[in-house]
Amino acid sequence: MTNPILPQTRRDLLAMIGKVGGGAALYQAMTVMGHAAESQFTGPPQLSGAKPGATVLVLGAGLAGMLSAYELAKAGYKVQILEVQTRAGGRNMTLRGGDTVSELGSVQKVGFSPGNYLNPGPWRIPYHHRTVLHYCKQFGVELEPFLQSNHNAFVHRKAAFDGKPQRFRDLTIDWKGHVSELLGKALNAGALDAAVTKEDRDVLLEALRSWGVLDKNMAYTRSDKVGEQRGWGRPPGGGVNGAPIPNDPFTLSDTLDSRIWDQLGFFAEHVMQTSMFQPKGGMDHIGKAFQARVGKLIRYGTRVSKIAQDERGVTASWTDAKTGAAGETRADWMVCTIPATILGQIDLQVSDAKKAAIKALPYGNSVKIGLEMKRRFWETEDAIYGGSSFTDAAIGLVSYPSHGCFSDGPAVLLGAYPFGVGSYMLAGMKPEKRIAAALEQGSVFHPAHYKSEFLTGASLAWSRMPWILGCCATWTEESRAAHYQDLVAMDGRIVLAGEHCSYYGCWQEGALLSALDAITRLHQRASAA
Amino acid sequence: MTNPILPQTRRDLLAMIGKVGGGAALYQAMTVMGHAAESQFTGPPQLSGAKPGATVLVLGAGLAGMLSAYELAKAGYKVQILEVQTRAGGRNMTLRGGDTVSELGSVQKVGFSPGNYLNPGPWRIPYHHRTVLHYCKQFGVELEPFLQSNHNAFVHRKAAFDGKPQRFRDLTIDWKGHVSELLGKALNAGALDAAVTKEDRDVLLEALRSWGVLDKNMAYTRSDKVGEQRGWGRPPGGGVNGAPIPNDPFTLSDTLDSRIWDQLGFFAEHVMQTSMFQPKGGMDHIGKAFQARVGKLIRYGTRVSKIAQDERGVTASWTDAKTGAAGETRADWMVCTIPATILGQIDLQVSDAKKAAIKALPYGNSVKIGLEMKRRFWETEDAIYGGSSFTDAAIGLVSYPSHGCFSDGPAVLLGAYPFGVGSYMLAGMKPEKRIAAALEQGSVFHPAHYKSEFLTGASLAWSRMPWILGCCATWTEESRAAHYQDLVAMDGRIVLAGEHCSYYGCWQEGALLSALDAITRLHQRASAA
Repeated sequence: MTNPILPQTRRDLLAMIGKVGGGAALYQAMTVMGHAAESQFTGPPQLSGAKPGATVLVLGAGLAGMLSAYELAKAGYKVQILEVQTRAGGRNMTLRGGDTVSELGSVQKVGFSPGNYLNPGPWRIPYHHRTVLHYCKQFGVELEPFLQSNHNAFVHRKAAFDGKPQRFRDLTIDWKGHVSELLGKALNAGALDAAVTKEDRDVLLEALRSWGVLDKNMAYTRSDKVGEQRGWGRPPGGGVNGAPIPNDPFTLSDTLDSRIWDQLGFFAEHVMQTSMFQPKGGMDHIGKAFQARVGKLIRYGTRVSKIAQDERGVTASWTDAKTGAAGETRADWMVCTIPATILGQIDLQVSDAKKAAIKALPYGNSVKIGLEMKRRFWETEDAIYGGSSFTDAAIGLVSYPSHGCFSDGPAVLLGAYPFGVGSYMLAGMKPEKRIAAALEQGSVFHPAHYKSEFLTGASLAWSRMPWILGCCATWTEESRAAHYQDLVAMDGRIVLAGEHCSYYGCWQEGALLSALDAITRLHQRASAA
Repeated sequence: MTNPILPQTRRDLLAMIGKVGGGAALYQAMTVMGHAAESQFTGPPQLSGAKPGATVLVLGAGLAGMLSAYELAKAGYKVQILEVQTRAGGRNMTLRGGDTVSELGSVQKVGFSPGNYLNPGPWRIPYHHRTVLHYCKQFGVELEPFLQSNHNAFVHRKAAFDGKPQRFRDLTIDWKGHVSELLGKALNAGALDAAVTKEDRDVLLEALRSWGVLDKNMAYTRSDKVGEQRGWGRPPGGGVNGAPIPNDPFTLSDTLDSRIWDQLGFFAEHVMQTSMFQPKGGMDHIGKAFQARVGKLIRYGTRVSKIAQDERGVTASWTDAKTGAAGETRADWMVCTIPATILGQIDLQVSDAKKAAIKALPYGNSVKIGLEMKRRFWETEDAIYGGSSFTDAAIGLVSYPSHGCFSDGPAVLLGAYPFGVGSYMLAGMKPEKRIAAALEQGSVFHPAHYKSEFLTGASLAWSRMPWILGCCATWTEESRAAHYQDLVAMDGRIVLAGEHCSYYGCWQEGALLSALDAITRLHQRASAA
């Protein structure tokens, strides 16, 4: 053990500063010490010294619940987890051949070939989600690159280019070309003299000429230089016919029709930036790694109906899903990770403010559809390896597997991943209708192969999963301002955790960071009690 | 065999159209048939029916030479390859522990740990280099993703930000923010009314607000929305201190100082676009795959000094590098892949025009330096996984390995990869001085670790490799116009091949496409003879 007065490592020091000065002081110290301000994660919590015999009841065996249990048990607490499902992991899930998807109103048997899978929940890990990455490393979960952006994938809008998909590459190159030409024109006309110094203007003109690949008249036109970015009518080759032939860029109007800035904005999001990763073989390897460490603490098939507390502890009343038997579990403290959609229906003894927060918290929906195809025709015919083709149809996108590129045999595409309206359209269909819709809509990208090479499909509509009834928390600015602190505040002996209790809604990182914050506060309270 | 009159497959049909109508007709047909115009590669050549006993001498056992030999041998030719080195592969090369780098004036022994390597020549394969990808697939060379762009890597210019590197992410987000704000201003002031229709203007304003993350006054300023792209002062977290705190964007002037458009332009190049790949374990697996198929045809250590031809065949006069013995090899036809830098010094019996082309062909230089570090501090301390940090110092960039992310133990960084001036500066140094310079200059990105965690380094200066004296052909528009067709034209019984005989200079794809074109023409000539 290290001397509790003198911090031995940078992390110890940061933890000490955090304790004494709070978050703002901690942040300042981190910045001074050269930490990239990319994550609030500063290492696993230092929770040593639980009072002998102190007990914690964790509700929910998703990532937040299992991480809470794992770290609290390490700190010396006696932990039990109640989980309504007969599996652990929550939304951290992977569907493989032989698995069953039980939604409200339907049951699907997944028919994918051995080795193929769909991650119906989380599927990619940004490089700055340090908490997820930390536990992956600690637990030996092997990661591989997730191919996020792909210049050669398609963008499709019904109202653009007569409904013909265009390459992301062509549209992005033309977008910056037209923007550069127009801004160059305005600068040269003196229209921005009041806004830009003479020095900046000259540099900016040079920059626009270079970035926009403009010609000597500062116009964006067909040229070999543009071809070197946009691709070619006839690409470069070897020998006598090696000379490439450029083709015509799209007009400004056509480029605007594509709404390409939506995709550019998507890839500019911090959580969507490169590099990204995925666990080899399926996202559920993370859930399974936690389960391997806390599985023995979990009581499965346990539906909690009432949560009470008094000055001495908490009590969860539950029913066993299989036997129907009723039971109660008592503990000194509780970490509740039950999603707000479900928690709002449970008799819960907390403040009215927290109840109001739970009721007010909006959840979004999404649907994922996996389509197994006979072979990777998107690679062999369209030269698309990973990444996503986007459409304004209900499916939202088609995403291509990052793993197994160039391999033969069947592979699973993500055939739909809408939020919002599209997700409710698909969630309202029977699973077989969803597959048909996904095949129909996705065909726009690969008309010659999409239907004819389809083998089998599986889908998951989060709004129809009985244990969550939605995909994840989608706070608005208003609901956040009114209710967030009430939701996360420790209430007597109960603290909530999960992605909904974070500013990283819909991400595993949010679930884990929320759990770390919740158990740190619980431990402080328990230590002071 | 298929009926020679009726094409049986799409590829046969394309080959037939190509024969009858030439390249332009072929391109048109490909487009009509829905082929992406992304590569001139339409499958391996159909060269059946060599005249019994016909012989071909190939000079050089790089990729162009070995592919030529492989396909010509398949077609029935009797092929021999003469190679000056004692190894095959040419510039397709991987340096591992125990290897030796022999430059003019120095010999290095590579000291990397087992499993670590540097690709001193080609190192990445764009998704549209179909010829390379085709032979990788055919020969079972396993590919893995090459992490090309990385939002979290650094950009450094001595004259910008007081020499402090900035994240690629921050600069790119600020670049589009400022560009959007300025163009929005010009549009709203009516400065572009003559250039943009009213309808386009309204859409463009909406687009700029979205893409540039502008506020309601169309200004690019600090906001949570900007933070969601640019990253944060304090990033989002879980629980009570979860709220993120945005930080201030850079000013337009500071953003311009970074010359970030250079990097944006680099990643916009067709050959630099995503997705990219690398062979698992080293680029030389491609060379070795060819060698496994044609190695028995290669005479190593054979320095060609004279190439003659007459109406009946070709003769190469050579010296054995080990024994000094002189020899001659005669054949009906020749594919010569010797780089122009060397070929220009050989007594060569071809037209004056071809000789002039060989003399006129400019070669660029580059240097690569591999630095083995004790551990991946760029991952653990800076959250950089793959991609490159750019600098205007001589090293040009530091590139991080795409493979083995999250692993422990020593790893090799690409510590320098300049073309132009920087490459000659580094090539002019002794190998140990290069390493010292690379450590000094690269330290700007990772000051706390770069020197202290360095283990061993290896470098290769292409201008000092005696068998090529340069990195690759860098045609100018003028030299191309004056000499390219003379260089690639079949001259009697001799045809040249290699990246220098293509419009894909400096890429393996160029070497292979050039070889396919050369042997196709040679076969036509030989069949007609």
